Amino acid sequence: ANPVEAAGCNLTEFIGTAVGDTIGLVIANVDHLLHEKMKLDKKYRSIGVIGARIGAGPQIMAADEAVKATNSEVISIELPRDTKGGAGHGSLIIFGSEDVSDAKRAVEVTLQTIDKTMGDVYSNEAGHLEFQYTARASYAIGKAFGAPVGKSFGLICAGPAAIGVILADTAVKAANVGIVGYASPGNGGTSYSNEVILTVTGDSGAVRQSVTAAREAGLKLLGSLGAAPVSASVPYI
Amino acid sequence: ANPVEAAGCNLTEFIGTAVGDTIGLVIANVDHLLHEKMKLDKKYRSIGVIGARIGAGPQIMAADEAVKATNSEVISIELPRDTKGGAGHGSLIIFGSEDVSDAKRAVEVTLQTIDKTMGDVYSNEAGHLEFQYTARASYAIGKAFGAPVGKSFGLICAGPAAIGVILADTAVKAANVGIVGYASPGNGGTSYSNEVILTVTGDSGAVRQSVTAAREAGLKLLGSLGAAPVSASVPYI
Amino acid sequence: ANPVEAAGCNLTEFIGTAVGDTIGLVIANVDHLLHEKMKLDKKYRSIGVIGARIGAGPQIMAADEAVKATNSEVISIELPRDTKGGAGHGSLIIFGSEDVSDAKRAVEVTLQTIDKTMGDVYSNEAGHLEFQYTARASYAIGKAFGAPVGKSFGLICAGPAAIGVILADTAVKAANVGIVGYASPGNGGTSYSNEVILTVTGDSGAVRQSVTAAREAGLKLLGSLGAAPVSASVPYI
Repeated sequence: ANPVEAAGCNLTEFIGTAVGDTIGLVIANVDHLLHEKMKLDKKYRSIGVIGARIGAGPQIMAADEAVKATNSEVISIELPRDTKGGAGHGSLIIFGSEDVSDAKRAVEVTLQTIDKTMGDVYSNEAGHLEFQYTARASYAIGKAFGAPVGKSFGLICAGPAAIGVILADTAVKAANVGIVGYASPGNGGTSYSNEVILTVTGDSGAVRQSVTAAREAGLKLLGSLGAAPVSASVPYI
Repeated sequence: ANPVEAAGCNLTEFIGTAVGDTIGLVIANVDHLLHEKMKLDKKYRSIGVIGARIGAGPQIMAADEAVKATNSEVISIELPRDTKGGAGHGSLIIFGSEDVSDAKRAVEVTLQTIDKTMGDVYSNEAGHLEFQYTARASYAIGKAFGAPVGKSFGLICAGPAAIGVILADTAVKAANVGIVGYASPGNGGTSYSNEVILTVTGDSGAVRQSVTAAREAGLKLLGSLGAAPVSASVPYI
Repeated sequence: ANPVEAAGCNLTEFIGTAVGDTIGLVIANVDHLLHEKMKLDKKYRSIGVIGARIGAGPQIMAADEAVKATNSEVISIELPRDTKGGAGHGSLIIFGSEDVSDAKRAVEVTLQTIDKTMGDVYSNEAGHLEFQYTARASYAIGKAFGAPVGKSFGLICAGPAAIGVILADTAVKAANVGIVGYASPGNGGTSYSNEVILTVTGDSGAVRQSVTAAREAGLKLLGSLGAAPVSASVPYI
């Protein structure tokens, strides 16, 4: 975002922006009519909101760090079919807290972390790859993917989806990991995005090895459809 | 559309085009096999068809004026996930009538009205905002949103969806309105578009105030992600 | 794809690419954990995978030829909402076989056939048209569309969907065909794409006449929204 324009956004609800057309916002006291329509739990007076056009995994991983670091909870995670003409999702993540400062802090931590979690998102003109890894998943990852909290977690994703099928096979053959979920365009786990998403858990060394093996294969396969895929930031895994 | 090309479309089914890759069409006598597959009510021999790549709200609002002005009914409203890489919907609206001249007239009125109802659609490279207002909703609005017919109606929409959450809160706090519906990417009311859509009803002055307050906030928030949002036509609210 | 880059893809799983960002892949022995999560029938040790960003019909028609020509079966066909900002679908097609050479051969035949089946896909800046025809449908067409195997089959598709409504009516009026299915953005058969898709069966001459009549009308209607639509390859019907 143009810093002049961002500086011009003087709304108290505005916290900041990040890569991927990500915006971070907060509402100190959600209107009671809206609160009901949004089906929020009554204990959350304040909400933090993260939304993006490009990316769901990076924002969810960043929100997971925010949940670890703050006194807030992830209320909901929704996956629009987006990426601005790309093959994947955007995201809408809502944090709840009793105090507005906690929701605000969760949004800030998320925004600060997205640059890192975009590091293993790679794209070219034909599609994208995404890899995520953490030694210890928390509640955002648990809510989004059904992954066990407190354990190591890895995500392997590619669009077009066909590449994701191969990466999923590569990942589970590369190390002794358990499968948390397998999502595909028409069989659940995606909003009809052109992706296959495999999520894995297990020993942290094994999860990392599984993810990096898939990454190596993915860069070759997506590269066969166009230019060498380029990271959206700096690879971290 | 290029007027030369449009002039070249000599099919009797072709009525015209409008902004947003909107096309207006008519079928005098729907084939009986197709009539059945489309699950049309038998009383409608003729149908009018409005379709667009960009925009659902503007076409629905325009169709609402057409229903008021003609002897036709809105049979169905479908929302594809579209906007040509944008965050929102396209549309497919079907009018039914006993006489072809009524369906044709409904399509004509809709096409003529879309330029107005695109007036409070604003966009920049990061997303879009949409606002609609009428002092008296008719059957197209009723069918699309479940809004009470004959009463004032307002629509507040933004993509990325996160901005729409804030606008929804702003709208209901700005005036004494009732919420008709709250739609989000994964919880119904959208086709996984990256939008939050709030619809409101109430006293017409309150509805208008609610919409304009949200519009003011929306222009600032979307502007934080890019250039100042630009109207697709001429603002009318 | 750049042949240098494709040449660089030395993975044994990689078979080749085709128009529409289509990629063809094979797995000789699907990992048993993944096999279960993908809900594959145990008799298929090997799978062939076809995926594309742009197009589902052309890939399905090509897969249908592959099924006729090889000892493999179509396990699943999924339709992501894609086409890289266009109005339609991408695709994910999985072949199963007991022997890897059969899955590989099915992928090869599919890739070789897509150039032909892209021939009656036409597009301009506003949308696209797609027409398909075969004198004898096999199991891929049967699985994807519920069409009778062994009989003539035709597909008529347009985006924006409104044009597809007119083409559907044109097609069934042009010849004595039966309707296999009518798909629209919000009423099933699409993944919220901005398309209406009509599928027909009957005498092969009638099916062909039905498809070509719709093609003639479609080129005029889509042309009214922009430039003259251009074939993605060489028309074959």
